[in-house]
Amino acid sequence: MQRLNIDLGARSYPILIGPGLLEDVGVMSGAVPARDVMVVTNDVVAPLYLARVVRALADRRVETTLLPDGERYKTLETMGRVLDALVAARMNRDACVLALGGGVVGDIAGFAAACYQRGVGYVQVPTTLLAQVDSSVGGKTGVNHPGGKNLVGAFHQPLAVISDTGTLCSLPVRELRAGLAEVIKYGLVADAAFLDWLESNVEKLLALDPPAVEYAVRRCCEIKAAVVAADEREHGARALLNLGHTFGHAIEAAAGYGEWLHGEAVGVGMLMATDLSRRLGWVDGVAVQRVRELLERAGLRTSAPPIGAGRALDLMAMDKKVLGGRIRLVLLARIGEGVVSGDYPAAELQQTLVAHFGSAA
Amino acid sequence: MQRLNIDLGARSYPILIGPGLLEDVGVMSGAVPARDVMVVTNDVVAPLYLARVVRALADRRVETTLLPDGERYKTLETMGRVLDALVAARMNRDACVLALGGGVVGDIAGFAAACYQRGVGYVQVPTTLLAQVDSSVGGKTGVNHPGGKNLVGAFHQPLAVISDTGTLCSLPVRELRAGLAEVIKYGLVADAAFLDWLESNVEKLLALDPPAVEYAVRRCCEIKAAVVAADEREHGARALLNLGHTFGHAIEAAAGYGEWLHGEAVGVGMLMATDLSRRLGWVDGVAVQRVRELLERAGLRTSAPPIGAGRALDLMAMDKKVLGGRIRLVLLARIGEGVVSGDYPAAELQQTLVAHFGSAA
Repeated sequence: MQRLNIDLGARSYPILIGPGLLEDVGVMSGAVPARDVMVVTNDVVAPLYLARVVRALADRRVETTLLPDGERYKTLETMGRVLDALVAARMNRDACVLALGGGVVGDIAGFAAACYQRGVGYVQVPTTLLAQVDSSVGGKTGVNHPGGKNLVGAFHQPLAVISDTGTLCSLPVRELRAGLAEVIKYGLVADAAFLDWLESNVEKLLALDPPAVEYAVRRCCEIKAAVVAADEREHGARALLNLGHTFGHAIEAAAGYGEWLHGEAVGVGMLMATDLSRRLGWVDGVAVQRVRELLERAGLRTSAPPIGAGRALDLMAMDKKVLGGRIRLVLLARIGEGVVSGDYPAAELQQTLVAHFGSAA
Repeated sequence: MQRLNIDLGARSYPILIGPGLLEDVGVMSGAVPARDVMVVTNDVVAPLYLARVVRALADRRVETTLLPDGERYKTLETMGRVLDALVAARMNRDACVLALGGGVVGDIAGFAAACYQRGVGYVQVPTTLLAQVDSSVGGKTGVNHPGGKNLVGAFHQPLAVISDTGTLCSLPVRELRAGLAEVIKYGLVADAAFLDWLESNVEKLLALDPPAVEYAVRRCCEIKAAVVAADEREHGARALLNLGHTFGHAIEAAAGYGEWLHGEAVGVGMLMATDLSRRLGWVDGVAVQRVRELLERAGLRTSAPPIGAGRALDLMAMDKKVLGGRIRLVLLARIGEGVVSGDYPAAELQQTLVAHFGSAA
């Protein structure tokens, strides 16, 4: 088992990484400091892991909220169902929410924990690669709005993150690949050596080679821990972790949530951000080719849907990273170094959008 | 104009108190540090004050969300309407929400500001006595749940509180009286000399004598500012400000939100808390009589609805101040000194409940 710490003063918490953790009585009961526990999970994850979690917490009062599976249910209404369950179970301020599942479950459960009685504790038990390397760490919680992704939410740090890498065996391969997009992201924005390692090991990750998976999850969490500790509420450097996300949000919003997986959209978005960086003269064509090839080897898409540059720009403008009407994007100063910028010629963005989304409306 | 400061480090903010402030261009534009402003108000307050606020912010882009008036609309759904309006107006992270109205408007608008894009700024412009002395200050935001009051919300401090005491002239007398209950509360839990002052000046306050009103609002805010600065998230001393609220919540919940005004229920609740303190031997019968007489002079109710002690206890148990199954109450060690305690004999609570709520189910 690997152990990291997110250093946030009074809100610091551990990340535990390793196989079999969610059924480990010592790990689970140590991480959940509450008598009353509301497990929030979904109808796909529950048959696989719920019984093990409940068994590991046999000395607690455990109630369960079962959500429907899928990004399209990541709504204020679904969050309200978790609140209803907490009220119905008469859980008080000392209760703890436990999010068992992927990013959607974690985001909804964490937001419900943030709002219930103005904030109760929660523990993340992510069961997807994307959640283990990204969404479970750092305290971003929330739901989507018809007007845009993650427009509603809270910064609310978990009490602990328990990443049972054994759960990745039950993950559909498409979701595993989508998670790899976020893994690649860390290399691109923060660690060129890690990107090199990924280029040598992407097949091992796809084959769920245990040491490779554990290393990748750990390295991503290390990078994220450092970024979050420096900028908890995303006033600055934390935005680097959004590489590909603004382009990706446009793809997801245009397709309707659920058609594209988040990681798939982010993958294409990263390619577009790299391409725009090339048009700005910051990276060369070799860098774009490296990103494209790594995405392809990871089994990810590299073509955006033909929604047209105009509509894409409109959807991007609703993304949260717009400041004062300016679309701020994460770009690459070089491989391994992201930069947040609203300071680029509009023409280059337009060319990038046309090249990937097409010019038709 | 009086100026106080709530000292919360990076989250510190001013409270400005005086007549005519909401139409003062200097005050308003200084307090609202944003180009885009979403004014949240209701259909009673809007005809009275909205145009003045919009005029005072003529150099900003101002949009408005009009909510229906009343505690029964203080729901997650209504909060969602504010979010919808923010999205529809394409407001970004730099936008500012301005709550123009009483406690319900402030709680909903503040909660929406807490959740929109994981937190945007907001300014409180309270137009009721209750909101000016209590709910607008301290960052408690939220909505009700069918299972209990304020069960859903966030701690989110405003950027400023602008208390225009001139707006109290348009307040229905019943609401003015309800606000006085919270004013009396500050004397009871924190300042015996202020309670003496209230006993000499309650008629002046009911007549809206300007110096008396300004002094009372200021003194209440001073007390609240000190308490909130010491315990922002109500881990301890802040709970003192809930004197009468646990009993009061039972009254409000039993009556259905809206039948009793919050302050009316708190008034009776304070009388019950004082009565329980007497049964515990902490205060004498004279103290109970003082509270009863002051409530009566303020035109407030002193009799609880006959819902029965059992049902009252059940409703109180759902209140947030229950820890580990124990009902923690704010009681009086003496006039001017509140104490939070779960350490009292159940028999004395039961006697108090029967005396005020009756024994019938």
